[in-house]
Amino acid sequence: MKRSSFLKRIAVLREKLGHIPPDTAWIIQPENRRYLSGFKATDSQLTESSGSLLINDKKALLITDSRYTIEAQKDAPDFQVVTLKKGLMESLPELLVRLGTKNLGFEEDFLIWGLHRQVAKKMKKCSPPVRLTPLNGLVDGMREIKDRAEIKKMEASAHLMSEILGEVIEGLKPGRTEMEVAWEIEGLAREAGAEDLAFPPIVASGPRSALPHAVPTKRKLRPREPIIMDVGIKIDGYCCDMTRTIFLGSPTPRFRKIYGTVREAQMSALQEILPGNESTHPDSIARNIIKDAGFGDYFGHSLGHGVGLATHESPRLGPEKPVKLEKGMVVTVEPGIYIPGKGGVRLEEMVVIEKDGPRILTKDTHLYDFP
Amino acid sequence: MKRSSFLKRIAVLREKLGHIPPDTAWIIQPENRRYLSGFKATDSQLTESSGSLLINDKKALLITDSRYTIEAQKDAPDFQVVTLKKGLMESLPELLVRLGTKNLGFEEDFLIWGLHRQVAKKMKKCSPPVRLTPLNGLVDGMREIKDRAEIKKMEASAHLMSEILGEVIEGLKPGRTEMEVAWEIEGLAREAGAEDLAFPPIVASGPRSALPHAVPTKRKLRPREPIIMDVGIKIDGYCCDMTRTIFLGSPTPRFRKIYGTVREAQMSALQEILPGNESTHPDSIARNIIKDAGFGDYFGHSLGHGVGLATHESPRLGPEKPVKLEKGMVVTVEPGIYIPGKGGVRLEEMVVIEKDGPRILTKDTHLYDFP
Repeated sequence: MKRSSFLKRIAVLREKLGHIPPDTAWIIQPENRRYLSGFKATDSQLTESSGSLLINDKKALLITDSRYTIEAQKDAPDFQVVTLKKGLMESLPELLVRLGTKNLGFEEDFLIWGLHRQVAKKMKKCSPPVRLTPLNGLVDGMREIKDRAEIKKMEASAHLMSEILGEVIEGLKPGRTEMEVAWEIEGLAREAGAEDLAFPPIVASGPRSALPHAVPTKRKLRPREPIIMDVGIKIDGYCCDMTRTIFLGSPTPRFRKIYGTVREAQMSALQEILPGNESTHPDSIARNIIKDAGFGDYFGHSLGHGVGLATHESPRLGPEKPVKLEKGMVVTVEPGIYIPGKGGVRLEEMVVIEKDGPRILTKDTHLYDFP
Repeated sequence: MKRSSFLKRIAVLREKLGHIPPDTAWIIQPENRRYLSGFKATDSQLTESSGSLLINDKKALLITDSRYTIEAQKDAPDFQVVTLKKGLMESLPELLVRLGTKNLGFEEDFLIWGLHRQVAKKMKKCSPPVRLTPLNGLVDGMREIKDRAEIKKMEASAHLMSEILGEVIEGLKPGRTEMEVAWEIEGLAREAGAEDLAFPPIVASGPRSALPHAVPTKRKLRPREPIIMDVGIKIDGYCCDMTRTIFLGSPTPRFRKIYGTVREAQMSALQEILPGNESTHPDSIARNIIKDAGFGDYFGHSLGHGVGLATHESPRLGPEKPVKLEKGMVVTVEPGIYIPGKGGVRLEEMVVIEKDGPRILTKDTHLYDFP
């Protein structure tokens, strides 16, 4: 990430702060924090923060403790790193006085109620008192549209993930367990230099493939049954998310039909991933194809979701809450059909929305051409 | 876990609910949820819950969606599993009417402010309106004292972790990287059947060992320098947390002295881990020994913390906020000395507090006997 990306983002945030009540943004959500500053540290637990940002029209502070000072200075050169000697609660009032804050904006979808209560108490005691106002998804909204540097990273992430998954699929054999396969994926990702997994690999075979959130078990892979592999890694913080369903040997006619339907739903939905379209539109295209093929009861989740520093972020591509699709968004397109007790098929590509339509970032690997 | 453990915990919770304003507890925090019900599912993101509990004097409901119904029924036989068709926000009011809830207790240290706002709106519209009241750490408090079944699991967790760490230390050689060693620990843990890591392994060598939260890098291990390994796994949900500092070859006299001081601080602190003692007391014992040896500026963190379903939970053993130590608490004792730019030493054991003192659950492996 070039230094200028962060300065640009800070400038956008400042411009937005000019139009809302809060004059200072307090950023504690790890992905928002990294997006604005480059600070890579994660939080080991929800109640254990590695730091937060305070940004107003003049200052950009990264507040942390001595464990993280050196990393913070290296990661976030556009920020003034403040190392707290006491806890955040003790230090916040004087920091806000220093910034001249009158109205502090917080992340309502991340700040814990109990911490809000503590901060609110402190703010009341400031003179003059500081107001506390939700930022209403301000930074999350900024993250929806990816810049060139981000897209490059997501491309790298998608390419590496596709290669690893392709390699693993080549080596699949009946008798190997779901857990062994999941573990192999993780090992290859680390060896190849992925920063982390985006999420633990899903490897679900046979009837277990009907569970969209299956955890890998010691179940052994068998011929002809569907095997869903839903996998993701991070490169430089940016996630990839992709899914393949494969068969060792030829699937039953029923699963050939299911696969063909899912693939058709996906291809048709992809054609509607266009700037200006509502996010609900590709979902309904896919949903109707699945319904018309007689599987309407077996597609229980949304068509897709935004991806970026988080595996799941806005926009959502589902049947509800339409938002306008825009150039630069990166989303998944992942229809599925799940027959309880029998098995399921899901296919997932990650695409960036360009002027003329979607560009698929995941590689065209191990897709069947069933009618 | 025998079925009766959960029924016993539900009974304790009900008894406590009899003495506070909330008549129904709404439990969303994953460890609290598992503690009370046995439901093992994790939340993939903070904003993506796999379910929650609603418990009052008559009913114990586990609210989830179709992805988790089967697991929920298997994991939590003492609960009535309710599969939501709509979102939680849409369904909560009618569930509360069904329960006759007048005052709903929530987990103030886990519920997000924005979600609280949504729930509060819904509750106001109920007739009669339902009040929303923090539970003030009620279930977290219950988790502090472990029962026999929990201690057995933590023992298993500590023994397996000790064995794995011992095996890895035996194989350490100069030239291997921190990341390779971390990866080996993770692999052995999975192969041995650990449910998960409790946290990503810390392997920090040379000057990096002075960073208490170091992430493993490609730095190669060298002879004579300190190598801190802070590792943990989960068995049946229960965490182990332990640390060894080792040297390949003989350390410098300075690090022999540092090691000896940390070990002495730890041994002396352990003698004060007694039922009835204040949690600040062993911390001050260790801190004074380190101070008297001339390293007072280099022990920046607390002496220890509670361990259980979470790696870090109450009680904390630090210089502030004294609580009374009790029989059945499981805590770490982990003094450290960190010389910036040079390196550090930390030693951590996990102990259960028994009537006559602490019983060390981690195994006596790879400890030096420096003066």
